[in-house]
Amino acid sequence: MFTKYLQDAFKVPLVIQLTDDEKSIWKKLPVEEAKRLARENAKDIIACGFDISRTFIFSDFGCVGGPFYENMIKFSSNITGNQLRGIFGITLEDPAAKISFPATQAVPSFPSSFPHLFTGKDNLRCLIPCAIDQDPYFRMTRDVAPKIGYQKPALIESSFFPALQGDTGKMSASDPNSAIYVTDSADDIKYKIERHAFSGGGKSGKEHSYLQFFLDDDTELEYIEKEYGSGRMLSGGTRGIKTRIIEVLTELVEKHCKARAAVTEAMVDAFMAVRPLPKMFD
Amino acid sequence: MFTKYLQDAFKVPLVIQLTDDEKSIWKKLPVEEAKRLARENAKDIIACGFDISRTFIFSDFGCVGGPFYENMIKFSSNITGNQLRGIFGITLEDPAAKISFPATQAVPSFPSSFPHLFTGKDNLRCLIPCAIDQDPYFRMTRDVAPKIGYQKPALIESSFFPALQGDTGKMSASDPNSAIYVTDSADDIKYKIERHAFSGGGKSGKEHSYLQFFLDDDTELEYIEKEYGSGRMLSGGTRGIKTRIIEVLTELVEKHCKARAAVTEAMVDAFMAVRPLPKMFD
Repeated sequence: MFTKYLQDAFKVPLVIQLTDDEKSIWKKLPVEEAKRLARENAKDIIACGFDISRTFIFSDFGCVGGPFYENMIKFSSNITGNQLRGIFGITLEDPAAKISFPATQAVPSFPSSFPHLFTGKDNLRCLIPCAIDQDPYFRMTRDVAPKIGYQKPALIESSFFPALQGDTGKMSASDPNSAIYVTDSADDIKYKIERHAFSGGGKSGKEHSYLQFFLDDDTELEYIEKEYGSGRMLSGGTRGIKTRIIEVLTELVEKHCKARAAVTEAMVDAFMAVRPLPKMFD
Repeated sequence: MFTKYLQDAFKVPLVIQLTDDEKSIWKKLPVEEAKRLARENAKDIIACGFDISRTFIFSDFGCVGGPFYENMIKFSSNITGNQLRGIFGITLEDPAAKISFPATQAVPSFPSSFPHLFTGKDNLRCLIPCAIDQDPYFRMTRDVAPKIGYQKPALIESSFFPALQGDTGKMSASDPNSAIYVTDSADDIKYKIERHAFSGGGKSGKEHSYLQFFLDDDTELEYIEKEYGSGRMLSGGTRGIKTRIIEVLTELVEKHCKARAAVTEAMVDAFMAVRPLPKMFD
């Protein structure tokens, strides 16, 4: 949503990398399954409403090659295994694929990886909105970029959503109750927030963190923070903060589900087609 | 020449990999220079007379991607850094590119890397004629192949040409007098063989090794080996073995130079075009 805001506000081309190769390497998925998941992922992204005339979505399995591969080799010739060990904890015990992957994640930062978009614009600067866990990849990218004659990318990093169980918990794929999924029904959301979400009471003030992410109305957010912080607003009950969280998340998820259901395979193909972007900088 | 013999004898499709990425990684060449050298290399190969209707020449920078890249990831997910250290002496001190490269050299062994040639023929067996120094790559390939559901490639390995200085010497790019180049003039060849080639005299019998590689007439070769071995034929002089070596090599190199001069850029493009091979198995 933030990335869509940036595109709308600045009218810039947006390139979205789907690292299906990473999924295959780390999660030991068959290549076909990793590619299928990347397309499903693309549908969620398209459902956010990106402008097709300014957006190119690609998957590594679909797009590595040519100038992209040339940049991977330039990049990976300029970083040693020891540096990767320092950054990612990769060792010689790991599959070789884990050692080659960081270059694959790094090179979309460089315009020359996409000749169909940026030919002759090698000095374009790239801004990467990403979650904080991706930081090591792009610190590495910034270190190597000048060695191969490229501009460093800039970053805007988001913090993670807290798990439903609060800041100390971690959202976990193996515990479906630790997070709200964009595929959850209204009943799922109600159940998860009422039964599984952290209830710290007014003092700890953790519960409104989901509202900080998702409630657009700053005045209401400030009001709720004050009421909840003072203990006048409780966790449960019809006027409690959880009721408001359920409302906000249900609306968001329902809107997303509707938008996603409208995304066709043809739209995925269109967003992922290797093509010039006609209104790239308009 | 041996590979051309195999193609002519068995009427089989031939896929030739030019590892321009390897040149860039190990020799620290700029990507553009490595690609240029690969095209020059392709001209030498085409000059050998391969049948364009059965031959596909590709360079890694030109062809990595799609199913080829998918196979690289399958492959490199199934071999650890430690195994590469055991095989190639690669360590974490090395650039990451050296750790990712072996997979790139391995996967042309698998038909599915070339969907434009072998779609639906995943079980085709691959024969790799190569010099003995490439053996570690393909032993590794044979180890990994069954793990990813592919056939093991078979190998025919040639021994190295001895250096002009004899078996103990090594042909070296930094010593132009250690080898005859296909670009050498008749005078260069005469000079190198007369002045720099090993002269062991009849007893050691090393000098005829170039004739073993290049003299087609087995009867003459046997005669020379007997005469030279017995000491009746000497190294130098108009009837010495060096004179015959100079004749054979000059003829070979002149023939090659003429054939190579006839290779146009358009022919290189044609051999390297990603296309079906019409007479692949005819």
